[in-house]
Amino acid sequence: MKKKKVLIIGGVACGPKAGARIKRLDPDAEVTILEKGELISYAGCGLPYYISGQVDNDDELMATPTGVVRDPAFFKMVKDIDVKNHTLAQFIDREHKVVTAVDLSTGTPIEYQYDDLVLCVGSQFRKPPFPGIDLAGVHFLQTVEDAKKIRNEGGPLEGKNVVIVGAGLIGLEVAESLKAKGMNITMIEMASQAMGNLFDSEMVFHLHNELKRNGVVLKTLETVREIKGNDRSAVTSVVTDKGEYPADLVLVAVGVNPNTQLAKQAGLEIGETGAIRVDASMRTSDSSIYAGGDCVENVSIITGKPIFAPMGSTANKHGRIIGDNICGIGSRFKGVCGTAICRVFNINVARTGLTEKQAKEMGYDCVTVLAPSPDKPHFLDEAKLIIVKLIVDKATHGLLGAQIVGPGDVAKRMEVVVANISSGAKVTDIAQYDLAYAPPFSPAMDNIITAANIAENKLFNRGRSLTPGEVQAKIDKGDDFIFLDVRSPQEYEQMRIEDPRIKLIPLGRLRSTLSELPQDKEIIAFCKISLRGYEAERILTGLGYKNVKYLDGGVVCWPYKKFVLS
Amino acid sequence: MKKKKVLIIGGVACGPKAGARIKRLDPDAEVTILEKGELISYAGCGLPYYISGQVDNDDELMATPTGVVRDPAFFKMVKDIDVKNHTLAQFIDREHKVVTAVDLSTGTPIEYQYDDLVLCVGSQFRKPPFPGIDLAGVHFLQTVEDAKKIRNEGGPLEGKNVVIVGAGLIGLEVAESLKAKGMNITMIEMASQAMGNLFDSEMVFHLHNELKRNGVVLKTLETVREIKGNDRSAVTSVVTDKGEYPADLVLVAVGVNPNTQLAKQAGLEIGETGAIRVDASMRTSDSSIYAGGDCVENVSIITGKPIFAPMGSTANKHGRIIGDNICGIGSRFKGVCGTAICRVFNINVARTGLTEKQAKEMGYDCVTVLAPSPDKPHFLDEAKLIIVKLIVDKATHGLLGAQIVGPGDVAKRMEVVVANISSGAKVTDIAQYDLAYAPPFSPAMDNIITAANIAENKLFNRGRSLTPGEVQAKIDKGDDFIFLDVRSPQEYEQMRIEDPRIKLIPLGRLRSTLSELPQDKEIIAFCKISLRGYEAERILTGLGYKNVKYLDGGVVCWPYKKFVLS
Repeated sequence: MKKKKVLIIGGVACGPKAGARIKRLDPDAEVTILEKGELISYAGCGLPYYISGQVDNDDELMATPTGVVRDPAFFKMVKDIDVKNHTLAQFIDREHKVVTAVDLSTGTPIEYQYDDLVLCVGSQFRKPPFPGIDLAGVHFLQTVEDAKKIRNEGGPLEGKNVVIVGAGLIGLEVAESLKAKGMNITMIEMASQAMGNLFDSEMVFHLHNELKRNGVVLKTLETVREIKGNDRSAVTSVVTDKGEYPADLVLVAVGVNPNTQLAKQAGLEIGETGAIRVDASMRTSDSSIYAGGDCVENVSIITGKPIFAPMGSTANKHGRIIGDNICGIGSRFKGVCGTAICRVFNINVARTGLTEKQAKEMGYDCVTVLAPSPDKPHFLDEAKLIIVKLIVDKATHGLLGAQIVGPGDVAKRMEVVVANISSGAKVTDIAQYDLAYAPPFSPAMDNIITAANIAENKLFNRGRSLTPGEVQAKIDKGDDFIFLDVRSPQEYEQMRIEDPRIKLIPLGRLRSTLSELPQDKEIIAFCKISLRGYEAERILTGLGYKNVKYLDGGVVCWPYKKFVLS
Repeated sequence: MKKKKVLIIGGVACGPKAGARIKRLDPDAEVTILEKGELISYAGCGLPYYISGQVDNDDELMATPTGVVRDPAFFKMVKDIDVKNHTLAQFIDREHKVVTAVDLSTGTPIEYQYDDLVLCVGSQFRKPPFPGIDLAGVHFLQTVEDAKKIRNEGGPLEGKNVVIVGAGLIGLEVAESLKAKGMNITMIEMASQAMGNLFDSEMVFHLHNELKRNGVVLKTLETVREIKGNDRSAVTSVVTDKGEYPADLVLVAVGVNPNTQLAKQAGLEIGETGAIRVDASMRTSDSSIYAGGDCVENVSIITGKPIFAPMGSTANKHGRIIGDNICGIGSRFKGVCGTAICRVFNINVARTGLTEKQAKEMGYDCVTVLAPSPDKPHFLDEAKLIIVKLIVDKATHGLLGAQIVGPGDVAKRMEVVVANISSGAKVTDIAQYDLAYAPPFSPAMDNIITAANIAENKLFNRGRSLTPGEVQAKIDKGDDFIFLDVRSPQEYEQMRIEDPRIKLIPLGRLRSTLSELPQDKEIIAFCKISLRGYEAERILTGLGYKNVKYLDGGVVCWPYKKFVLS
């Protein structure tokens, strides 16, 4: 039998994965990988940790867990895969199944035949047309070479000024790395908040606070006009529509675009997100050409719609599916939720699916949950706060999305959410999951179980509440209501919402102080986390009060002005 | 309308939860809780951390997360629930719906009427009939009072000898606590391993090693014959069938039995596990009597069979379901997986469902996976090993159970397993979960995704392997095979299996050293974690070798004799 020739373009994540899978399933296949750069199969997501020095040596980013560096010799010897690095694919001749490439070190053109072609050509950082974008000291971050420049160029970083343009995932991770290096950091973000549309505003509020606590200046709703340099063409400052910020170094991290030139030129179908369109077997519109990783669009398993969500974890999944299909195993990729997670100084922020804002814009009728509480029993010193936000579809009771932030273990709860969504289950099913309980790991009722129980109460109208945004809107309108704080006076001294509508009645005194609460007036109850607030709503509603609600998430989740004893 | 009278017997976890839920759903209900002890709603699972001093004050175990102590006054004021502590329920008159109790402080009998009765009477530690079991210094651990005695009785614990009888979850947690107090610890276990039947032997092996590393002496397959005391009736030693161990303190932790006396005397049905039988609405065989928490049996959602699996997290779930049903909401409890987790010094051990041994005994045809790897990208210093074992039903491709151990984050991966099992999905579905990926949280292919991929390979015969137990059995039988170590010579120097069948050929040299490997001989390949071992199996099988397998989990998971450079 003729040996199958598989040509893979791109040697970072999806490509090597697909190649390795193919060789395991069909050792006779002839697999070649073309990579335009020097390096193969490196951990792009580790670059911020290389910049911070947490990863000492760039070799570590390319090593296997046992320390073997994945260079072309490794691929040949171990995997029997031919890797051609410094080789840029330039043209696909679909009719003759030939790819024309150029050897970048010699300039020689070379042709590669294929039976199956795999495009894993990744994405490219956006380079906005700012005047001064090409000045020395203006950086982007995508390759190990980029990271090396940031880490080593221009001598020691300590005490110097860096301006990071874009407060997305990469910008935030690098902010932490450069802060660890002792730099003064200003972040410039066009949107009204960090992390773009990944979080709702009341959740990203905690991230903004954490940046402030760590001395990172975040300027939102500011647009860069120009990057200025000195007479040696080195960057000196960044000018926005609102100010000018001195800069010894600039990182531009305003997102990535899928690399589609090769696909477009070959006439392959491009999806509505602008990335290469593939079916569930990761095939492009040409049945001999597969594509995966950052250059393709995915399907959201929540909306069924295409999304562009480049992620190293997804690229690895794509690689396996492609390998399977090339070898005759009909694996299907079911899509992504749109999960992301990031550590920013001492807090962790994770998200999946739709935000509340997106869900509403898409016409979903949804209920939301805000559940703050310690991630372990409060009696352990190691317990730390996390805040869970759930967005639930009223029609199906399925989760549309979730956001979890805080210094505690947010990742674990996010995985439960993702598994729940992926299995097509209802949010209320989470409440019965037999999760792993012992005090060093979680409260007896895990945070995500409590959140699911709150969702159930709301879906079945067992307890009425308002979101912080809804309450603030009432305040802005000048509505008359009693804003009932049911905490203790000591807690009130520590932290409080300051508003003339506030009335402090500790929960334990509520039943004996009813005379102070007119039955006909709207009451919005809250406490620290709104467990007692909810209890107050239940008590008053039970006593015949007609218009009582609680404030979702209590004062801990209140993202507007509040007094905090420092 | 007549107000509903709900009487709850038992004030620790399930009872207060049920009571609070009822009052939230039906504020008119009259709820009374009878509790034989002093304390209400305390965190029993926190007792080991109170013993170690990690929890300073026993009040903290009874406080809400905001520091309010849940005493009877709190319950009355906040929840409008009457709590009668020091009150022992003695007799249920089902015909007249009356419970007779005795006030333990005065000896006065009191009658309580009910419309609905809830039994949350918990479990009781087993007290084996050892001679000397009642000596001073012999302890059990169930209540705050028990913990206080261990912590405070007999002065400082440092340098003293404690014998812990029983190496189950409680015994292990307390071992860690008492080690933190500077005690010398000997554990006596009747079975061949710690944690009874919760883990398979090759997984518990790592726990045994961790105990050894921390100076805890674990004696397995030993039976206590007698506890000896001095002339002041204080314990001095524990005598087993194999030796005698000096003891200043003894903790007997050999499991618990459900408290069923009250139920039995009332003629309620008892299940085959010996605990109270309830239906999915948590009703006993009397439709006016509910039961929940440690006194009832659960249904395994894996086998559909009853199991006794007392757990604080489950008790809380029961309480909510009971509250719902008493208030006319038809919630149903779907059952448990049998999840448990424990931190023992520097490793975490978690499990759910059936062990391999149990699954085989029950007649399941299953495949198993052993997947050891770092819990984060290897280039981060904070990456730590975890070992995932999966037990998969060949018929349905569903998970029958899982065990995860190691110093890394085992909890997160266990939650994914539990969510997967609970949703009735296949193990292979896990491979596509869009889990939260960033280097501080997981490798790009999360450990549980890798494990699911291995399971898929095995279910579809893409790669043949043997478990450590199967290989050891071949060694014991004197089988002739090549035990092919494909690691580097440096790795071999560090740690190795010592057997005359061992042949060291680093993977990179395998393709060029085929002459050393006869085609007709059985070959069992391995490396550190058996990723390269699997690769070697694929390479040789691909080259036409007929009888090649890899060793599940590699040398890291090898639980038998091995050389480790110290």
